[in-house]
Amino acid sequence: MALPAFNLPPAVSLVEVGPRDGLQNESAVLDSQTRCQFARKLAACGLKRIEAGAFVHPRRVPQMADSDQVLRGLAQDTGVSWSVLVPNRQGLDAAIAAGAREIAVFAAASETFSQHNIHCGIAESIERFRDVVEPAVAEGLEVRGYVSCVMGCPYEGPVDPQTVTRVCTQLIDLGCYQISLGDTIGVGAPLQTRKLIDRLLSLVPAGQLAVHFHDTYGQALANILAALQAGITTIDSSVAGLGGCPYARGASGNVATEDVVYMLNGLGIEHGVDLEKLIEAGRDICKILDRPVMSKVSLASIRTPDPNPQSGSD
Amino acid sequence: MALPAFNLPPAVSLVEVGPRDGLQNESAVLDSQTRCQFARKLAACGLKRIEAGAFVHPRRVPQMADSDQVLRGLAQDTGVSWSVLVPNRQGLDAAIAAGAREIAVFAAASETFSQHNIHCGIAESIERFRDVVEPAVAEGLEVRGYVSCVMGCPYEGPVDPQTVTRVCTQLIDLGCYQISLGDTIGVGAPLQTRKLIDRLLSLVPAGQLAVHFHDTYGQALANILAALQAGITTIDSSVAGLGGCPYARGASGNVATEDVVYMLNGLGIEHGVDLEKLIEAGRDICKILDRPVMSKVSLASIRTPDPNPQSGSD
Repeated sequence: MALPAFNLPPAVSLVEVGPRDGLQNESAVLDSQTRCQFARKLAACGLKRIEAGAFVHPRRVPQMADSDQVLRGLAQDTGVSWSVLVPNRQGLDAAIAAGAREIAVFAAASETFSQHNIHCGIAESIERFRDVVEPAVAEGLEVRGYVSCVMGCPYEGPVDPQTVTRVCTQLIDLGCYQISLGDTIGVGAPLQTRKLIDRLLSLVPAGQLAVHFHDTYGQALANILAALQAGITTIDSSVAGLGGCPYARGASGNVATEDVVYMLNGLGIEHGVDLEKLIEAGRDICKILDRPVMSKVSLASIRTPDPNPQSGSD
Repeated sequence: MALPAFNLPPAVSLVEVGPRDGLQNESAVLDSQTRCQFARKLAACGLKRIEAGAFVHPRRVPQMADSDQVLRGLAQDTGVSWSVLVPNRQGLDAAIAAGAREIAVFAAASETFSQHNIHCGIAESIERFRDVVEPAVAEGLEVRGYVSCVMGCPYEGPVDPQTVTRVCTQLIDLGCYQISLGDTIGVGAPLQTRKLIDRLLSLVPAGQLAVHFHDTYGQALANILAALQAGITTIDSSVAGLGGCPYARGASGNVATEDVVYMLNGLGIEHGVDLEKLIEAGRDICKILDRPVMSKVSLASIRTPDPNPQSGSD
């Protein structure tokens, strides 16, 4: 059988979203010191790109209150790019004052989702982001763009890949160094992933794209495999599977970093993360949050063989 | 970017293992009538190959007691290949008496697992199966071979792919029409899957191989994707993720058929199964067993949008 090569990149960059996208979607509210400790523990695992907070209104998102203190607390922790979500100019100013070197803006590929999530349509959101991205870039900050609903929308259903392409290129044109493609409701399957990425790669270099999968339908790792095969080398994930989309409450959310790292190890792809320490960090934060670990790798690695098994097991 | 084609087969054959491998590893013991109804419900979903029972000692595996009655109860349900596990000649005679047209034998690619699971080494097990497979084939039955621990063993750790290859070819030489490759403890990752299958396909046609993944480390769907890309067209799975390996008690077991079907739908691969009915069948049997559904697709499809979401969700 003459099959095509498996085609995998030699190394990837992991973007850990647990302390922001993760914690933001947990019901417990942690103080800034606890969040700092959590973020630092993740850095100690070898993660080099970590979402640390969001400069949003604390009444709307209490989980992200005092993100300025989190960022200030992490100022000594160099060698890591601490990213913070910034929705507007006011947030940008506060982020810069707190020492931010990397920020993220958040768009959607669905009109209805954009309206629900950030209270304006797609075109208006891009215009608003201009007031954030351009001054941020002028200040020497790195800006990452998120595009949600790239595989489907909880309101509109299927999302036109042309819309995804348009929003991505608009954000890049504004000055974003990378776009994270979010399958917000986890509906994508690997062929859709491959097709979307192939389409984007005809316009944008692979290094400017990242994938952000949710495991709601169990497809996240298969989608990541398809993305890797297509040439993607940046993967967003959340330790212990923290967080998720509040539009699908109770659904499993972000793919767990532990499970991604396990797969990458098996694929022989370099990532620089210590899986044992990561499992530990995930368990620790889940204890604090009083919620179960959503990483299968973490759950599997605490189990011991049954001393008295039945026969005929496959 | 000139990437290799995604390389997927147009159609696959699903082997539903819920009523045997699934139920056998559940703590609840169901009577033969309930198991018949369950198996029939799965057939009504469009599944054409279903494991119906096992002719093993009821004291050792009470979940499979009265498998002869299950098989007799399904005699009128034509159009489906009902397969039963048969460990020895006595079991074969009982299976034939109950009307079996397809049987399965169960080997391992690990000496220690073989000793623990079927109480003899690999070579001896192959010799024992000769007394089952040869008369079964002579009677016109189809015989499927299972090989467990193809990606790793709970006792020995890594398993030599050469051992897997040897056991597979020996079972085929005995008369098995297909070998199901079992990642019993779910440790495999997609590159290992691809390499093992490439190796086997240099010796055996794709139609003689099937994959049987456990989702213990969350890798099952990614492994199935890699297997499909390698040319495999038969997939074992278990509705609602029933069962699993008793050696990793508490671990998630067989990959859920619902999640496989969802991915196949997304990949545009034909399988003939009605996903809605399948979700229903999985929920029904889990209610009877009083255990949670382990299919993410099933869990996701009962959730409704949150009417009061937060902002900034990815």
